[in-house]
Amino acid sequence: MSKHKSLKKQREALCEDLLEAQFELQKANLGPVLLLVSGNDLAGKAELIYTFYEWLDNRYLNTRAFTLPQGIERKMPRLWRYWRSLPPAGTLGFYLGSWYHQPLIQLSRGRMSDTRFKSEMEQVTRFENQLAAEGVTLLKLWLHLDDDHAQHYPPREQQKQYDSLAMREWGEFSTTEYTKVREAAKRMSELTSTPIAPWIQVDSSDAEARDLYVGKLLLKAIKQKLQGKDAVPEEHDWQPSKSDRLEQLDYDHELKKDVYKRELEHYQHRLRDLARHPAFQKSSLLLVFEGADAAGKGGTIRRITHCLDPRMLRVHGTRAPTEEERSQPYLLRFWRRIPAPGKVVVLDRSYYGRVLVERIEGFCSDLRWQQAYGEINDFEAQLHKAGTLIIKFWLAITPEEQLSRFEDREKSPTKRYKLTDEDWRNRDKWSDYVNAMNDMVENTATPQAPWHVIPSTDKRYARIQALRIVCDTLQKRLKQS
Amino acid sequence: MSKHKSLKKQREALCEDLLEAQFELQKANLGPVLLLVSGNDLAGKAELIYTFYEWLDNRYLNTRAFTLPQGIERKMPRLWRYWRSLPPAGTLGFYLGSWYHQPLIQLSRGRMSDTRFKSEMEQVTRFENQLAAEGVTLLKLWLHLDDDHAQHYPPREQQKQYDSLAMREWGEFSTTEYTKVREAAKRMSELTSTPIAPWIQVDSSDAEARDLYVGKLLLKAIKQKLQGKDAVPEEHDWQPSKSDRLEQLDYDHELKKDVYKRELEHYQHRLRDLARHPAFQKSSLLLVFEGADAAGKGGTIRRITHCLDPRMLRVHGTRAPTEEERSQPYLLRFWRRIPAPGKVVVLDRSYYGRVLVERIEGFCSDLRWQQAYGEINDFEAQLHKAGTLIIKFWLAITPEEQLSRFEDREKSPTKRYKLTDEDWRNRDKWSDYVNAMNDMVENTATPQAPWHVIPSTDKRYARIQALRIVCDTLQKRLKQS
Repeated sequence: MSKHKSLKKQREALCEDLLEAQFELQKANLGPVLLLVSGNDLAGKAELIYTFYEWLDNRYLNTRAFTLPQGIERKMPRLWRYWRSLPPAGTLGFYLGSWYHQPLIQLSRGRMSDTRFKSEMEQVTRFENQLAAEGVTLLKLWLHLDDDHAQHYPPREQQKQYDSLAMREWGEFSTTEYTKVREAAKRMSELTSTPIAPWIQVDSSDAEARDLYVGKLLLKAIKQKLQGKDAVPEEHDWQPSKSDRLEQLDYDHELKKDVYKRELEHYQHRLRDLARHPAFQKSSLLLVFEGADAAGKGGTIRRITHCLDPRMLRVHGTRAPTEEERSQPYLLRFWRRIPAPGKVVVLDRSYYGRVLVERIEGFCSDLRWQQAYGEINDFEAQLHKAGTLIIKFWLAITPEEQLSRFEDREKSPTKRYKLTDEDWRNRDKWSDYVNAMNDMVENTATPQAPWHVIPSTDKRYARIQALRIVCDTLQKRLKQS
Repeated sequence: MSKHKSLKKQREALCEDLLEAQFELQKANLGPVLLLVSGNDLAGKAELIYTFYEWLDNRYLNTRAFTLPQGIERKMPRLWRYWRSLPPAGTLGFYLGSWYHQPLIQLSRGRMSDTRFKSEMEQVTRFENQLAAEGVTLLKLWLHLDDDHAQHYPPREQQKQYDSLAMREWGEFSTTEYTKVREAAKRMSELTSTPIAPWIQVDSSDAEARDLYVGKLLLKAIKQKLQGKDAVPEEHDWQPSKSDRLEQLDYDHELKKDVYKRELEHYQHRLRDLARHPAFQKSSLLLVFEGADAAGKGGTIRRITHCLDPRMLRVHGTRAPTEEERSQPYLLRFWRRIPAPGKVVVLDRSYYGRVLVERIEGFCSDLRWQQAYGEINDFEAQLHKAGTLIIKFWLAITPEEQLSRFEDREKSPTKRYKLTDEDWRNRDKWSDYVNAMNDMVENTATPQAPWHVIPSTDKRYARIQALRIVCDTLQKRLKQS
C-alpha cells in the first residue's frame, strides 16, 4: 500500500473513532475537553482547527480566539473572560490565544520581568488545577516547525500556499520575534508543564501527520475521561481552626429604637452619597452575607440596598445549583455575577456554600471542599486586583435565638413561608456549621477580603454595624483612589 | 385614627401581602411580572422602584434601565436587548426606558412620522402579545403629575427635595418637551393599550398614595397569575397548506463522484472568499437546517462550515429545552443565538421545532403553535431588518430512503450511535410531519427568508445544492451593499 493510501485509511479510521468518542462524551455530559492551540506563527494552528471542523460534529465544537482584552474585559480580572467562555459540558473547545498569550508576548518583548512572569504562571497553574479538579480536561498544544523550516522562517512556500487557500494564520508573532518567542515559550513550558496539564510539543512540518497526531491525542484524552481516568490534583492547603469565633462573641449588644432610627438614616444617607462618588465608577463592591437561617441576612441586605440606585445593583440569592450549573465548575456561576465597574453585587449566601453546606451535606468530596479555600482566595484576590472591594459578613446568632425566631415565624401567617423543613434539619447540624464557619474564617480571612462577624441577636444592632462597616470601608477606598 | 397612621397601617399590611405573593410566585416558578415604569420626568419613577426595593425580597427583583442603544446593540434588532434581559421566571422586573422610550422621544421631537410610529407600535403590540402568551405579565405604568403640578413644571420644591435626597430622576425628557411628550404619550396609549396589556395612568402627585396604588396593582396581578387568570391573546393568523411540496419533488437527482469533488471544491472556495469579503462585516448569516432524521443535515452542514473561519462560526443543535429554558419564552434561546455582524450561525434544527415536533408531540397547546408562525415571521423580519441574511433548508428524503439509511446505520458499528428509539418512533408519524412541514413552508416562506426544499436522496447532490444556494444568496447580498 502506498504511503498516501495508508495515511488516508488511518485518517478515516481515526475520524470514525473520534466521532463516536465525541458522541459518548456528549451523552455522558462530562466536563469539556479544552485544547489550547498555541505555537509559532504560521505553524498551522488555524489549519489544525479546520481539520477538526471537517472531522467532527460541529454542534459540539466551540472555538474562541482571544486577542488583547477589549472594552469591559480590560476592567475585569484577567481570567474573567476565560472563565465566562468555558465550553459547556460534553463538548470540545479550541482556544486560540489562551491565558498564556499576553504574558508570553510581554515576556518575549522584555515588557515583563521574569519574577512577574513566574508569579503569573503560578496563578495560571492554580487555575488549571482548579479546572482539572472540576472535570475540565486540558490539552496544551505547542505547534512548532522543525529546524529546517524554522531556518527559512517564514517559509515562503507555505506562505504562498496559505494565501492561496485563503487560510492565513492569525498573526500572533511577527517574524523577527521568532527566537525570542521560542525562548519565552521554553520558559513558559518549564513553569507550567504540570503532571495534570503538560505542554505537548507538536511538530507541524507535515500537516497531515500533525492532524493525525493531535487527533490521536484527543481520542486518548476523551477515552481516558470516559473511563474516569482523568488526572486530578490531590493537593490542598488548609488548616482546621483552633479557636471558636462564635463563642467569643458578645451577643448582648442592643440598640434602642430611636437611636436605631437616627443611625439608620445617617448611614443610609452616607452610603447613598458614597455610592454616587465619581471615584466609585472605577471601583465596584461585592457584599457577601453568610450566617445561620433566620440570622437576619435579608433584612440587613434590604437596609443596605434600599439606598442604592437599583440600576447599579444586583442581589443574588445562592440556591442549590441547577442541573446545568452542576455540570460546570463550581465557581463559574459566581464569576458570571461579579460586579462591573461602578456596580454593587450583594450575595445572600455565596460561593462559601462550598465550605459550608456542600461540605456538611457531602455534596462534594472532602478533597474538593478542602481545595476550595485556596480557590476562593484566588478568586477574591483576582477581584481585588481588578478594583473590587469585597466585604464579607457573618451574622451570628445563638441556637436559642434561632429557635425563638423559628417559633415566631411559625406563628406568623405572613412569615411562615420563610420557614422550611430544611431549616429545622439544619438546626440539628449546628455544631457542624460552627466548625465549618470557623475553618472558613481561619482560611479565607485575607487583608483584601476580611470577614466581619457580627453578633445579631439584636437585629437593629446588626443592621447598623453592617451599614457602618460598608460605609467606612468604602470611604477608605474612595479616599485612596 | 389619623390619616398618617391609617396610611402606615395600610402600607404595612400591603407590604406583608406582597412579600408573601412574591414568595408564592417564586415558588411556583411562573413567568415573571414586568413593570414598565414610564412617565414624565420628575414624576417619581426611580422613587417608586426604591420603594419596592424596601418592601420586597431584593433577590427576586431585577431593574434594568435602557437608554439609547450602545455598541453592539445598535447593530442588532431593536428588540434584541429587551429579549435578552427578560427577567427570569418567578421574579419581578422593573424596566426604566422600555421599548417605548425611543419611538416616543422621536415622535415627540418630530423625527418620526405618525405612520412609522404606528407601524412601530404594531410591532410592539405583537411583541407584548407574544410575551403574554408565554406567561410574562406586563404592567405598563405611566406616571404623571396632576395639572396643578404640571403647570409649575418642573416643580421647584420637588426638585429641591430630590436633590437633597440624592434621588434625582433619570432625565428622560427635558422641560420644554413636556407638552409634546404628553401628546406623544397619548398617541402611544391609544395605539398600544390592548386588553392584554393596557396602559395604567398613575397619579404621582402624592408619593405615598402612588406607591400604595402601584403596590395594590402588583399584588392583584400576582394573585391573578397564581390563580391562572392571566389574560392571554387568542388570535392567530395562519392557513393550512393545500399543496404537498414533498410529493412534487424529483428525488432522482444524482451527482457523480468526480463531478461532486470538483463542484465541492469550487463552491467551498467561493464561500470562503465571500465570507472574507469586507462587506460581510456589516451583514451576518443565519442558516437553518430542517428535515427528517437521516436526511443528511449534519454532513451538509460540515461541508459548509469546513471552509469558514471557526472564529466567525457557531453551529447549534436544537435539543429539547432544559428546565430553565422551559420556564422562559420559547424564542428566547434563539434570540440569544442570533449572529452578530460578520458572524455565521448554523442551526441544526431550529425554532421551527415549535411548528414541527412540538406541534406533533403536543409539547405546546394548539393555540401556541398556531400563533408561532406569526411570531417566527416577526422574529425573522427583525433579523432581516438588522442586516442578517436568513437561508432556510429542508432536506427532503422519501420514507423508503430513510428506512434504508436507518438500516445502514444499524449495521455500522460507528454509526449506530446516531440511531435512537425516538428516530423509529418518529417514522410512524411521517404523515404528520409532512403536514406540519407543508403548513410551515406555506406560512413562513417570506421574500426575506425563503425556504429551499432540496431533494436529498443523493447526499452529494444535496450538499452541492445547499452550498450553491448559500454562495449565490450571499453573493447577491454582498453586491447590493
